[in-house]
Amino acid sequence: MEKLEALKQRLRQFTAERDWQRYHTPKNVSTALIVEAAELVENFQWLTPEESMHLTPEQHWAVEEEVADVFIYLVRLSDILEIDLFDAADRKIDRNAEKYPVEKVRGNFIKR
Amino acid sequence: MEKLEALKQRLRQFTAERDWQRYHTPKNVSTALIVEAAELVENFQWLTPEESMHLTPEQHWAVEEEVADVFIYLVRLSDILEIDLFDAADRKIDRNAEKYPVEKVRGNFIKR
Amino acid sequence: MEKLEALKQRLRQFTAERDWQRYHTPKNVSTALIVEAAELVENFQWLTPEESMHLTPEQHWAVEEEVADVFIYLVRLSDILEIDLFDAADRKIDRNAEKYPVEKVRGNFIKR
Amino acid sequence: MEKLEALKQRLRQFTAERDWQRYHTPKNVSTALIVEAAELVENFQWLTPEESMHLTPEQHWAVEEEVADVFIYLVRLSDILEIDLFDAADRKIDRNAEKYPVEKVRGNFIKR
Repeated sequence: MEKLEALKQRLRQFTAERDWQRYHTPKNVSTALIVEAAELVENFQWLTPEESMHLTPEQHWAVEEEVADVFIYLVRLSDILEIDLFDAADRKIDRNAEKYPVEKVRGNFIKR
Repeated sequence: MEKLEALKQRLRQFTAERDWQRYHTPKNVSTALIVEAAELVENFQWLTPEESMHLTPEQHWAVEEEVADVFIYLVRLSDILEIDLFDAADRKIDRNAEKYPVEKVRGNFIKR
Repeated sequence: MEKLEALKQRLRQFTAERDWQRYHTPKNVSTALIVEAAELVENFQWLTPEESMHLTPEQHWAVEEEVADVFIYLVRLSDILEIDLFDAADRKIDRNAEKYPVEKVRGNFIKR
Repeated sequence: MEKLEALKQRLRQFTAERDWQRYHTPKNVSTALIVEAAELVENFQWLTPEESMHLTPEQHWAVEEEVADVFIYLVRLSDILEIDLFDAADRKIDRNAEKYPVEKVRGNFIKR
């Protein structure tokens, strides 16, 4: 089975076993996702952008855990709403490529 | 090639073609991710949890686009920091399963 | 002295005594603010909107602490950027009143 | 009347005239607040911390508008939950002063 499908099923089972489906509305899961995104961002809040590229192993591990939490809620949400993450991302990149043509934006700082 | 690897490479190329790597520090990409997470949440902010389960096609499409944006920055960040999203998620679920044993939390509302 | 001015000065002194001014760029303080906003939101993430109106004393206290943190960073940011919070809010409400005239939006759910 | 009290009353009236009280649960208002916090952060996401200290007038105006939105929802929330913003901030700074004593943290980067 594809990895993403396996993860969806694992999360579905994890939720059902605990009888947590009733909490997992799109509103609530999106809120949980942004809370985890903030815990991710918190790791970098007082670092310079440069420092954020040179994390200690301990910092890296902390970041990885928050990345996992964001991914878990994103996969959960995509399962609930029947969104294909890879298809949605590819279509979005297609639109972004039209919006930001290489010849126009290369080497310029632009409001994205 | 695996879908996730293909997406990573597509985003790497998209960024390089536009000479945007210098903006893509972990600090900045995490910040961009939470901004997209907020645009996701915005779709649900005045809806009840119940209403969020019954989106119109137009609402669903808007949500899908924001889900894609969050996923794009998450994959980009995981590429920059060499984090394996599926491994990290699986390890996190293992820890969550220990933290919230079925027999203990089932049917109870708990602070998660 | 006006309360807001007193709070600004207290925060300015608190920061200077600890030599933390160099961390307090608008970029970083805004990031710290959203991290605190997420800690606020976390209190409500699994509650229904109705439940969020009937907090226990313990929940209320936890919310109050996060509200304080958001306010602290907002006042700090407004001091750094020389923004008058009350003037800015009043001007924004003026614009909102034009954007959402009573006769047009009353009793209708609208995308705000 | 004190400025904060006047702002509270103005927002209470604004909401009541539009019949929006039913949307203004603590859960929803907190969510709206973090959405505005993200719009604030968005202004800085690709800037370096240094650049964020030297905004153009246009950037400054955009930031001020988002600061106003965060403040508006914070004041609204504090009104709904009967939280005294200035008291809550002062008590939080008292606790922070104990947690981060000057002699201990001065000149050191610490996890805050």
